[in-house]
Amino acid sequence: MKLLRVGHVGQERPAVMDAAGNLYDIGEPEIDGAFLASGGVARVRDALERGDLPAIDAEGLRVGPPIARPGKIVCIGLNYSDHAAETGATPPTEPVVFMKAPNTVIGPDDEVLIPRDSVKTDWEVELAVVIGETCRYLESREEALTKIAGYAISNDVSEREFQLERGGQWDKGKSCETFNPLGPWLVTADEVGDPQDLGMRLWVNGELRQDGNSKNMIFDVAEVVRYLSRFMVLEPGDVINTGTPAGVALGLPGQPYLKSGDVIELEIDGLGRQRQTVGQA
Amino acid sequence: MKLLRVGHVGQERPAVMDAAGNLYDIGEPEIDGAFLASGGVARVRDALERGDLPAIDAEGLRVGPPIARPGKIVCIGLNYSDHAAETGATPPTEPVVFMKAPNTVIGPDDEVLIPRDSVKTDWEVELAVVIGETCRYLESREEALTKIAGYAISNDVSEREFQLERGGQWDKGKSCETFNPLGPWLVTADEVGDPQDLGMRLWVNGELRQDGNSKNMIFDVAEVVRYLSRFMVLEPGDVINTGTPAGVALGLPGQPYLKSGDVIELEIDGLGRQRQTVGQA
Repeated sequence: MKLLRVGHVGQERPAVMDAAGNLYDIGEPEIDGAFLASGGVARVRDALERGDLPAIDAEGLRVGPPIARPGKIVCIGLNYSDHAAETGATPPTEPVVFMKAPNTVIGPDDEVLIPRDSVKTDWEVELAVVIGETCRYLESREEALTKIAGYAISNDVSEREFQLERGGQWDKGKSCETFNPLGPWLVTADEVGDPQDLGMRLWVNGELRQDGNSKNMIFDVAEVVRYLSRFMVLEPGDVINTGTPAGVALGLPGQPYLKSGDVIELEIDGLGRQRQTVGQA
Repeated sequence: MKLLRVGHVGQERPAVMDAAGNLYDIGEPEIDGAFLASGGVARVRDALERGDLPAIDAEGLRVGPPIARPGKIVCIGLNYSDHAAETGATPPTEPVVFMKAPNTVIGPDDEVLIPRDSVKTDWEVELAVVIGETCRYLESREEALTKIAGYAISNDVSEREFQLERGGQWDKGKSCETFNPLGPWLVTADEVGDPQDLGMRLWVNGELRQDGNSKNMIFDVAEVVRYLSRFMVLEPGDVINTGTPAGVALGLPGQPYLKSGDVIELEIDGLGRQRQTVGQA
């Protein structure tokens, strides 16, 4: 099942998309932690199967992020061996964890802004995990998988100078305004199937820059969720960006960082497609 | 003016304390970003002056964190030269920025839990800044100061092995459950006066461990807010932990990290006092 939020910024209305691509109002106030924690996915599935939901005319509607403001966004760094190599880092022996401010989340086709004084704004296509149930000291990978509501595409936009050359910690280059396009859909875990067999691609101005597959994660989704739950409490609606494959500007010859007017397109098998134009803050 | 939230966990009721220490119900749903952004502080001040607010019997009431779930918690690392020295770090040339999960926030006297598998849980008394208005690319220190709603005590609890020895980024040791006691009050900026002249102290089991003053910050509050607004959008209700002075377990002879049963007490001039017992997750 594909859950989404449509409408103007800040006025999005929660919706579900059926297999034929039709949109229906889900009759819930939001798609957020409270919705997920209270069995919202099952409620919507039942209502959709009963044919109880009113149709929405999708024509011309903006698609927002599929989850209203996450409680936190946790990111896994260097989680693909090819990406670790291109950045000159040794592959990590346990997950590298950092955070992104939750107010970086925008819709999948909203404008990405290059921060003022930035010269190294970069892209990162990532598989985003959306947590469906509280995770606290999970013991097993199997248990971890049961806590996942679903998946989405995330563009973990990053400013490399802020991240790597401005003192200390990566977070400084990860939390700029508009730095986390998310969506178009929250695809429920049952529909995605194996999260470790998803092709993911990213183009800049039509040129294919990233062409990876989630099977190449160093720490897979089940391990990432289990591991994180030993260090923090994950809550329904939290988002985990699970790392990016090779092909970011930082690792490419000439380091072709983003500039105003560029167009970024992203795609993950089964999770849809994003398209952002790049502007200037 | 001192704003606070009293009652059981998750059922706190917003209140104001007058100069005589009496509590009054503020008649607002929450002390949070929406309250601060909509002029809530001025509304409460007016109502308190008019004598319009109903009294609360404070007897036996738990004090919760003074702000309901912040949108983000941004932390400044190594922001006191004496603390930088004790950790063996060179003082930073620009602010070191990291983040803490917002669901680490607990009341000022709630139990702090040592994470499972932890052997290096440490304390950090800090001046917390609570943002009152959106901050985006602020140009000046003066403007930054006008965006601050008030101040509170923060215990930036940290697991040093998770932070420093488990791969990569500090956030891993900063976001464990219960790792951010906050409060007892949000003291409005006008009442605090100069935020760079506040004594701050922390005791463990009655032994004075930290005895600092905010005048020793490397980057002061105005600069921290101005600086951060160039890298992320700060929103009403966001919390900034501005760094800790010397005297943490990491820097002390024998590294006397916290153990179950310990009692931590913290104090900042004009901002009240916290007292936590330490338990085991």
